Amino acid sequence: MTTRPAGDPGFPDIPRHVGPLGDMPADEFRAAGHALVDWIAEYLQHAERYPVLAQVAPGEIARSLPTQAPEEGEAFGDILADVERVIVPGLTHWNSPTFFAYFSICASGPGVLADFLSSALNQQAMLWRTSPAATELEAVTLGWLRQLMGLPAAFEGVIYDTASISTLHALAAARERALRGVRRTGLASREDARGLRVYCSEQAHSSVDKAVILLGLGHDAVVKVPTDDAFRMDPVALAAAIADDRAAGHRPLAVVATTGTTSTTSVDPVPAIADVCEREDLWLHVDAAYGGAAAIVPDMAWVLEGADRADSLVVNPHKWMLTPFDLSVLFCKDMELLREAFSLVPEYLTTSEAPEVRNLMDTGVQLGRRFRSLKLWFILRYFGADGMRTRIAEHLRLAQVLAGWIDAEPGFERLAPVPMSVVCFRACPRTLHDQPEAIDALNERLLLALNTGGQIFLSHTKLRGAYALRLAIGHARTTEAHLAMAWQLIRETAARV
Amino acid sequence: MTTRPAGDPGFPDIPRHVGPLGDMPADEFRAAGHALVDWIAEYLQHAERYPVLAQVAPGEIARSLPTQAPEEGEAFGDILADVERVIVPGLTHWNSPTFFAYFSICASGPGVLADFLSSALNQQAMLWRTSPAATELEAVTLGWLRQLMGLPAAFEGVIYDTASISTLHALAAARERALRGVRRTGLASREDARGLRVYCSEQAHSSVDKAVILLGLGHDAVVKVPTDDAFRMDPVALAAAIADDRAAGHRPLAVVATTGTTSTTSVDPVPAIADVCEREDLWLHVDAAYGGAAAIVPDMAWVLEGADRADSLVVNPHKWMLTPFDLSVLFCKDMELLREAFSLVPEYLTTSEAPEVRNLMDTGVQLGRRFRSLKLWFILRYFGADGMRTRIAEHLRLAQVLAGWIDAEPGFERLAPVPMSVVCFRACPRTLHDQPEAIDALNERLLLALNTGGQIFLSHTKLRGAYALRLAIGHARTTEAHLAMAWQLIRETAARV
Repeated sequence: MTTRPAGDPGFPDIPRHVGPLGDMPADEFRAAGHALVDWIAEYLQHAERYPVLAQVAPGEIARSLPTQAPEEGEAFGDILADVERVIVPGLTHWNSPTFFAYFSICASGPGVLADFLSSALNQQAMLWRTSPAATELEAVTLGWLRQLMGLPAAFEGVIYDTASISTLHALAAARERALRGVRRTGLASREDARGLRVYCSEQAHSSVDKAVILLGLGHDAVVKVPTDDAFRMDPVALAAAIADDRAAGHRPLAVVATTGTTSTTSVDPVPAIADVCEREDLWLHVDAAYGGAAAIVPDMAWVLEGADRADSLVVNPHKWMLTPFDLSVLFCKDMELLREAFSLVPEYLTTSEAPEVRNLMDTGVQLGRRFRSLKLWFILRYFGADGMRTRIAEHLRLAQVLAGWIDAEPGFERLAPVPMSVVCFRACPRTLHDQPEAIDALNERLLLALNTGGQIFLSHTKLRGAYALRLAIGHARTTEAHLAMAWQLIRETAARV
Repeated sequence: MTTRPAGDPGFPDIPRHVGPLGDMPADEFRAAGHALVDWIAEYLQHAERYPVLAQVAPGEIARSLPTQAPEEGEAFGDILADVERVIVPGLTHWNSPTFFAYFSICASGPGVLADFLSSALNQQAMLWRTSPAATELEAVTLGWLRQLMGLPAAFEGVIYDTASISTLHALAAARERALRGVRRTGLASREDARGLRVYCSEQAHSSVDKAVILLGLGHDAVVKVPTDDAFRMDPVALAAAIADDRAAGHRPLAVVATTGTTSTTSVDPVPAIADVCEREDLWLHVDAAYGGAAAIVPDMAWVLEGADRADSLVVNPHKWMLTPFDLSVLFCKDMELLREAFSLVPEYLTTSEAPEVRNLMDTGVQLGRRFRSLKLWFILRYFGADGMRTRIAEHLRLAQVLAGWIDAEPGFERLAPVPMSVVCFRACPRTLHDQPEAIDALNERLLLALNTGGQIFLSHTKLRGAYALRLAIGHARTTEAHLAMAWQLIRETAARV
C-alpha cells in the first residue's frame, strides 16, 4: 500500500459508546462528524497531494481486508484508520485539480454538504406525501436550471441518477408514443414493432446503445450516422439513412442528437436534425449530458440552438455543474407519456391527496429516490447564476489556452476542434510524420508514462483511426497554473518516451 | 409554514469567503460542515420532535421559493436558514422512530457519515482503474453480506441503486439466456420471443411489472399466481399456470419468488418454487429486497431456504440494514450473462489492465456509479455482525409484541401472519361485524386521523378486499416505548373516529 502522503490530515480516535441496540449516540456522531469534516475540508483543498490515478495493483485492496464481517462492532476511529490505510491509496482522485481524464467533474463544497444532509434526511420521494419537500424542490430547482439553460417552459424536468437512465426513459417514452399500448402488449406480438430504428451519430454515447438493447429493440436497431470533419452528425446522411431504412421496410423511431460528444465535445446540428425529425415524425432526444451546462454561458447558448424543438433532453449537473455524483436531469415535453409508460400504483401506495399532486414514482422505473435536488439547489444558490457562468467560462477559456499552446508547439498537433473544455491532441514528431502506427504507439507510451507518474491523469480516444490524448477541464479548483504544469509535463514526457 | 419545533437546534451564521472562481474555501467548509454535523446529530437523535408525516399543503413549498436562481451567490448560512424555514416543514421524517409506514428504514449514524465521505470522494467506479477502492470494496463487502445471509459462494454480487434496477437486470439476464442474441436482434423479429411469461405472486412488488414493461415483454406477460391464506405463492397454482400457458403456446421465462412481500412480509415457498423452475427450466429470481436482511438472524435463516437454488436474488441494505438510501444488491450466479447482456466498451473506456480486473460498468445499464459499498462496509464494521443481528431480532420481537397486543384487544383484529416486522390489522368493533364497508370506512378514517396527528405515521394495504392498516418496524431508535405510545394512540383514536 502507498504510504500516507505528507500533509494528509489523518483521523483522530473516536471513542465508541454505542449500546447493544439503537444507533450511534449523538456525542459520538458529533466527534466522528467533526473529524470527517476536517479531513474532507483538507482533502478537497489539497487533493493534488495524492497520485491522481490510483497506483495500486489489481487485488491489492481486496487482499488487505478480512473476508468476513467482524462479529463484534468496531470503533469508528478504527474504520477511519482503515480508510486511510486501505481505501485512500485505492482512490483515483476525481477531485484532483489535475484530473483531466474522461470528463473532469467536481464535488464542490456546498454540493458535498448538501448531499450529507440528504443522506441524513433519508427521504424517499416516491409519493408527494412521502417527501413534499423533495418533490417540490425538484420542480423548483429544475425550473431554475431550465431557465439558466434557456429552455422553454414546455419542458418539464425529472431527476434520475445517471444519463443512462434518463436516455432510457426518453426512448421508452418514444417507444410508447410510436407503439401505443406496447406497455401492455410488448414488442414480440406486434407487426408494427418490427424493424424499429434509432439514429445517433457514430460519436454518440454508449448509453444510447444500452437503452435500445434494454428496451428490447435490439442493438441492430441503432443506426450510427456519419459525422463531418468536426465530428458532428451529418444531417444529410441522417435523412438518407432514414430514407434507405423506410425503403427497406424498417420503421424509424427516434433520433438522438448529441450536444457535447464524449470524445471531442462536438455539437450535432440540432436545428437541421429537428427539421428531419419533424418531417419524419420521429422523437428527438438531445443528449446534452455534458454540454448542456455550457449553455448557461451567454456566448455558448448556441450549443442548445434547436433544442427547444426536441421532445426530450438530458443534462447531468454531476458532470459540469459542481454537483457530486449522481444527479441527471431529463427534460421532457410530454411527461404524461412517461406516466403512460411507467405509472403503476399498487394499493399500498394509493393516496388521497388532490389529483394535481405529482408523485415522482409515476415517471420512472425506480420507485425510491434520494433527495437529489437538494444539492443542486444548494449549489445554484451558493455560487449564484453568475458564479456558475464564471466557472464554466473559465474552463472554456483554459481549454482555448491549452489549444493555443498545442497549436504553437512543433511536434504536437490537435486532432479536433475545441468547442467546449476538452482538448484532443497527440505528440507527432516530425521524424514519425509518415508512420501512423509509430505515432499511435508513441502516444500510448506517453499516456501510460503520464498516468503512472501520478501528477496528472488523462484519458484517450480514437479519432479517424488515430490514437488521441484527451485533456478535459471541469474542476472548480483547476487553474491555469495546473494546466501549465500539465503541459510542461506532457512535453517533457513526450521528449523522453 | 410550520414553525420551528421547540428544541430544533438551528443553524449558525456561516460567513461567505468564496471568490469569483474556485470552490468553497476550506475554512468556510469547516464552519459549515461543523454546523451541519451538529444539526444532523440532534436531528437523528430527536427526529420525533417533528410531525412524522409532513403537514404542508400541496404547492406550499414551491410557492415559498423564488422561481429563478439568484444571480449573485448567497451565504451558506442563508441557505441553511431556508432549509429550516422551508425544507424541514416539508419533510416526512423517515428517520423518526415512530415512522411505521411502508417499510420503516434507518439512516444510521455510521451510514450517514460514510455516505458523506462517499459524496466528497466522488468516485466513479465504472472501470476498475477509475476507482480500484470502490470496485474492490464492493466485492469484499458483498462477500461479507452474502455470508451473513447464508448464501453460497456461487453468488457474485453487484450494487445498484434500487431493487427496481436490480430486478430489471435479473430479468434482462433471464431474457438473454432464454433468447440468445436478443441483445442484438431485439424481440420483434423473433418467433421465439412471442408469448414470453414471467410469474410472480399476486402479492409481488410492482417493480416486477415495471421491469417486464421496460424490457419490452409487455405487461400481459406478467402472470400473477394466487397465494395461500398466509399470502404465500401457491406452487401448485404456479405449476398449473405454467402448464396452461405452455398448452396455449406461451413461453414461460422466469419466476420471481418474494421473501418478504410488501403488504404482509409473507414468504413464498422458495424450495417448492425452485423445484418447478428446475423442472421447467425457468430463471428463478428471489425478491428478498426487504426480507433478505432477516436471514442474518439464525432463527430466521428459513426465509432464504431454497434461495441457494435461485439464479439471482435482490436484497436492499437500505431497507432493513441501517443503510441510507440508496443501496440495492443483486446476487447472481452467472454474472457473465449480465456482461453478455450489457457489456459495451467504447474506445474512450478501453483499458490496459489485466483481463481479470472487473469493470463494474460491464454488468449494468448505468455507466457511472457512486461509491455505495463504503456505507455498507462502515455499517457492518461499526455495528458488527452481532449488532446487526441484535437490532433486526429486536424489530422482529417488537412486531410480535404488537401482534400480541392486537390479538388480546377486543375490537381489533390482525389480518395477516407476522413473519417479520410488519403487522397488518384493523379496528373491527363488534357493532360493525357484518358491515365490511363500514369497517373499511372506519379504518380509513382511523388512518387519516392518526397520520394527520403527526405523532406516528402508518400506511395501509388491502388484503382479500379488506382495508388493512400496516405498522412496520425497522428503525434502530424505535423502542417498545414508541410502540406502546403508538398502540395507545391507535386505540384511543379508534374509539374516537
